[in-house]
Amino acid sequence: MTELKNDRFLRALLRQPVDVTPVWMMRQAGRYLPEYRATRERAGSFMGLCTNPELACEVTLQPLDRYALDAAILFSDILTIPDAMGLGLHFTTGEGPSFARLVRSAADIDALGVPDPERELRYVMDAVRLIRRELHGRVPLIGFSGSPWTLATYMVEGGSSKNFAVIKELMFDNPVLMHRLLGKLADAVADYLNAQIRAGAQAVMLFDTWGGVLTTRDYQEFSLDYMTRIIAALARENDGRRVPVILFTKGGAGWLEAMATSGADALGIDWTIDLAQARSRVGDRVALQGNMDPSMLYAMPARIREEVATILASYGKGSGHVFNLGHGIHPGIDPERVRVYIDAVHELSAPYHAATGGR
Amino acid sequence: MTELKNDRFLRALLRQPVDVTPVWMMRQAGRYLPEYRATRERAGSFMGLCTNPELACEVTLQPLDRYALDAAILFSDILTIPDAMGLGLHFTTGEGPSFARLVRSAADIDALGVPDPERELRYVMDAVRLIRRELHGRVPLIGFSGSPWTLATYMVEGGSSKNFAVIKELMFDNPVLMHRLLGKLADAVADYLNAQIRAGAQAVMLFDTWGGVLTTRDYQEFSLDYMTRIIAALARENDGRRVPVILFTKGGAGWLEAMATSGADALGIDWTIDLAQARSRVGDRVALQGNMDPSMLYAMPARIREEVATILASYGKGSGHVFNLGHGIHPGIDPERVRVYIDAVHELSAPYHAATGGR
Repeated sequence: MTELKNDRFLRALLRQPVDVTPVWMMRQAGRYLPEYRATRERAGSFMGLCTNPELACEVTLQPLDRYALDAAILFSDILTIPDAMGLGLHFTTGEGPSFARLVRSAADIDALGVPDPERELRYVMDAVRLIRRELHGRVPLIGFSGSPWTLATYMVEGGSSKNFAVIKELMFDNPVLMHRLLGKLADAVADYLNAQIRAGAQAVMLFDTWGGVLTTRDYQEFSLDYMTRIIAALARENDGRRVPVILFTKGGAGWLEAMATSGADALGIDWTIDLAQARSRVGDRVALQGNMDPSMLYAMPARIREEVATILASYGKGSGHVFNLGHGIHPGIDPERVRVYIDAVHELSAPYHAATGGR
Repeated sequence: MTELKNDRFLRALLRQPVDVTPVWMMRQAGRYLPEYRATRERAGSFMGLCTNPELACEVTLQPLDRYALDAAILFSDILTIPDAMGLGLHFTTGEGPSFARLVRSAADIDALGVPDPERELRYVMDAVRLIRRELHGRVPLIGFSGSPWTLATYMVEGGSSKNFAVIKELMFDNPVLMHRLLGKLADAVADYLNAQIRAGAQAVMLFDTWGGVLTTRDYQEFSLDYMTRIIAALARENDGRRVPVILFTKGGAGWLEAMATSGADALGIDWTIDLAQARSRVGDRVALQGNMDPSMLYAMPARIREEVATILASYGKGSGHVFNLGHGIHPGIDPERVRVYIDAVHELSAPYHAATGGR
């Protein structure tokens, strides 16, 4: 394997000294980039782009050619697993993802198979292998999956939801059935992430996009417990290095202490919580990833730099912080504002690492 | 004035002893009730219903005739103030509120007048007076307003928003202008709530529906500070009793300590936070209102009762809790499930008040 030339991201996730704070962006390969839109056009459809390893590799690398990012993230969708289970994923313009077949009954759940990642999800593994090759060790590659709870919301509701009425009714009235579905999804996610790691992913992230719609009790039982089980099942090594795991529950700022016991190396946090407060709550148990408001990239360059400075000061000295947005970048952002943000993180963070012997 | 026959709600907001925990629901006069849908049909449009005091009074009282609710809430919309400022509010099916005129420039803001509640918002005050008369002292009447920040989001974005791109750009790049708009709205909200109190509102609630999309810093500066200013400006007495103020920031569970210093008597909380934890964080500074997941009303009666029991146990002994949902009731709920919920609160809460000398 090619030697990794920039390992800041992996080091920060493991709270090892770094020279500057590493930075990347959720959805960094995305619609705000004209080159992404051109490739997406050639692919014909969003799923056409996801399932074509060459094109997925191309869009994964695009933001790295523009910006001094410290990590690449596999271009894919969080719903590849239910699609591989045969539910028929498609995307409708303006309405988001939707499934041809719903999962609502015991029979529906029992009929679901746990996909073999190298067969039904081969296109993802091929993309991981190709991206690793094309990266030539520039930065580490992040693999990812949706969390069992988040996947279940789409499978039961049939697509995006506002109130999660159907899945909550199932969870409240038939928790046994809900657990059967989540258990199967946890097995599938563990297999899927392990296969990504074998294919070359150097860190993995669990996206729990909808954990934040639950009560504290239900979050623990129906989302966090399954993520904890997945993390315990992961092979945590690649090329002789530890593969860090990042857990991100959007809207989960109230549960950082519980998440810190999940086995994850780092927690993603959204922008509604101060990084200083988050750090004092999790102590040295986990690193933190976040948390600039994605809308800050609509602001003028001076204001963006000011916000980067505020967030860096909020985290304070030492390693254990990966700079990111608190959510995916919005499609309408000017790519030049992204440059301001990325460069500001590197430029303004050096003083926070100088005293700690960062390399 | 008629003597108030059931004052549990007011007593609990002031943390005075009660016999059982009082209960009401956000959007209790709403689409889940067939009698509401019938009146709404007669009104012709949603704004037609809001602006007709007789019909607004009718729908306000409907849920009280069905359920043993401990409070009535004025039927109105949070956007009456910007409408009275001349922005032309209308509702489109499935898309929510939208304004004919947007507020984006200094000139737009300077052109806004602070409405005289007894003139431009006379229909609201007439509704308050009529409802008070028709209530005959059965339960207290809650008045309300949107928060300045929440009103501003609709005025600047032109309607509902997903990312709040336009208002955040204004806030980030031109905070002076943003403060000018919010200051004017704070004056208008204070006048509006004082007029509601004079007309008969016995408690008032500030709905900060969109405060939760801000960072901690921005929430304090652009939302909470203005609500604090409004609360300080309110005449807090009606019929010789104190008029309690409830502050509700959806998604604001991280900021309870800050909210508790706003001057509000009670904080509304959504379902993502445990009531026990919330109570220990705010101590005896404020009462708490909430926080059952509205989707729990999709569950079977036994499950609803179990959840009510869990939430009551979470708050524990003593007064200072008003039971409510963590957000407005969903339109598709079966009205019979609502009865289960309301009755369970009264039935299961008595033991938590017995030892405290509750009357």
